[in-house]
Amino acid sequence: MAPDRPPKNIAEELSEFGLIDRIRTWLSPGDDARIIAGIGDDAAVVALDEQHALLITCDMLVENTHFRRDWIDWTTLGRRAAAVNLSDIAAMGGKPTWALVSLACPPDMQTADFSALFAGLRDELAEYGAHCVGGNLSRTAAELVIDVTLLGEQLRECILLRQGAKPGDGVFISGFLGAAAAGLALLQQADSALLGRFQSLVNAQRKPTPRIALGQALAASGRVSAMIDISDGLAGDVGHLCDASKVGVLLEENRLPGATGIEEVARRLGIPLRELLFGGECYELLFTVSGPQEDDFVKMCSAELEIPLHRIGTIVPAAAGRQLVDLNGQIIPLPGAGFDHFCRR
Amino acid sequence: MAPDRPPKNIAEELSEFGLIDRIRTWLSPGDDARIIAGIGDDAAVVALDEQHALLITCDMLVENTHFRRDWIDWTTLGRRAAAVNLSDIAAMGGKPTWALVSLACPPDMQTADFSALFAGLRDELAEYGAHCVGGNLSRTAAELVIDVTLLGEQLRECILLRQGAKPGDGVFISGFLGAAAAGLALLQQADSALLGRFQSLVNAQRKPTPRIALGQALAASGRVSAMIDISDGLAGDVGHLCDASKVGVLLEENRLPGATGIEEVARRLGIPLRELLFGGECYELLFTVSGPQEDDFVKMCSAELEIPLHRIGTIVPAAAGRQLVDLNGQIIPLPGAGFDHFCRR
Repeated sequence: MAPDRPPKNIAEELSEFGLIDRIRTWLSPGDDARIIAGIGDDAAVVALDEQHALLITCDMLVENTHFRRDWIDWTTLGRRAAAVNLSDIAAMGGKPTWALVSLACPPDMQTADFSALFAGLRDELAEYGAHCVGGNLSRTAAELVIDVTLLGEQLRECILLRQGAKPGDGVFISGFLGAAAAGLALLQQADSALLGRFQSLVNAQRKPTPRIALGQALAASGRVSAMIDISDGLAGDVGHLCDASKVGVLLEENRLPGATGIEEVARRLGIPLRELLFGGECYELLFTVSGPQEDDFVKMCSAELEIPLHRIGTIVPAAAGRQLVDLNGQIIPLPGAGFDHFCRR
Repeated sequence: MAPDRPPKNIAEELSEFGLIDRIRTWLSPGDDARIIAGIGDDAAVVALDEQHALLITCDMLVENTHFRRDWIDWTTLGRRAAAVNLSDIAAMGGKPTWALVSLACPPDMQTADFSALFAGLRDELAEYGAHCVGGNLSRTAAELVIDVTLLGEQLRECILLRQGAKPGDGVFISGFLGAAAAGLALLQQADSALLGRFQSLVNAQRKPTPRIALGQALAASGRVSAMIDISDGLAGDVGHLCDASKVGVLLEENRLPGATGIEEVARRLGIPLRELLFGGECYELLFTVSGPQEDDFVKMCSAELEIPLHRIGTIVPAAAGRQLVDLNGQIIPLPGAGFDHFCRR
């Protein structure tokens, strides 16, 4: 596996998702027939028996990459570490069950910090019926690392994957877009008046709300063809769904539901609104529904669960690419490719 | 949960294991009847159904805490990250199944490094029938962090916990003691002649051999009352077994099976032999067997599996404490308390 050219570091050679593709090849699980979905979905899915599947996911928060300690309190950080994993289980339509937490702790962490962190983690998990059953503690020289592994369960026939979308399917999104991206921009700006005025956007950045009930309801409905959370940003993640489903997509900018306040934040901070709408750290669910009456079905779900659900576009054949009808009616390539840990933008 | 005295950092206030006790309280899972063993065993155990249990463990390797990049190649590091987790599944008597790996990657990691790391991880897992099904990649500023989560399975009635040892039970250990500790001392010394001469000790430090087949055979035998791996050192881990089983222990120093070469390493490097025998990063299994004919049973296992197994002492009532009969026949407290991430020694 030695390279046949001078070694390059990953930022020069591969994007994060290019690297994940390579890793999938390197780790090819061979002949394990119990693996239903391996590397490359929101969570791995393995068969427990004829009917039941186990979901497994992990998500790591690294200080100064995913959070800054002066931007978030310990309890909220604990909740966030749980929430980002809960969202991965939600995106498969699963029911979260058990978690493990690994911490690499810098030397200045105090007992009260641990207590608050674990209280947040415990409470966020418990809200969705999950419990922490183990973990691991280590020292690190500087940056705090929190890695949570979360298991979930679901009937095999109900699991929703990224693959399965078909041309003609409607593309829907839960909730509203851009809150976390606007919150991040506000935190970076550090204007205390603005931070106070747009507190709900800042809080959306600090701690997302995982869409557990929605994910399970959509899984049970039998009407959804594919699903993903958009934590890497709308364009990147709809792209992952298109990759897995071997389809294209046409989104409509005038249908994208912006969170309350993001237009004003965009104007005040001089950020294009589109950048917020397509920003990362948004843990809403994007899902596709086949006809007939797909819009009526989704309207009914929205009313029953009291969760806003909006149609934002349509799945098209792969050859038609991934495009956006912009506010002027022009068709342009989908902007942005999502957050990539290995590319600086 | 705020402290009622000036905040202290954990190194001042609590040991690693003191902190784990606190965390167990903070995370108390309440009324989840499916949790058979939570925080505080080698792996968590949850019930899948009436007969079957799922094992879940995670172990994090932090650069400069658990390894140095100039002491180990990437492939061996990948194997080690898998092996330390495999050992936790072995210590419960389980069969390893699926793994997830989270990496926080420093900017200087090259594609070839990833390739070698994942090849080692994949091959070590595959040797024991397990596969990697997912994971997570992040950036970090400096230190590489590898967190592996490993699942396993076993019949509920066969699972071996740390609790269950009874006074009178024989205490047995697999393999030989002190190889990893001697290897670490040799790496720290960095004398290339000595490193060459004692390569097998150095290799034992770099990559332990998880005792998967032994763990499963002991679990299936129905004769073992409690089991643990001694990755935190013999004294610390036999102490954890005593805590969980509410018993004491009497070990005999003249029965401790030292790895080939450690006496010479101890002499040449001026380290007390006992320090090596009780050193950390030893991934042998320590288990307790009730009479009658416990020694005959273990001899038979050893012959069948072709793994050396030695009796090193006896479980005693809790009130008798945790003691060692030293080479002079004196009874002394068990030396050392195992590796603690939050105490400097």
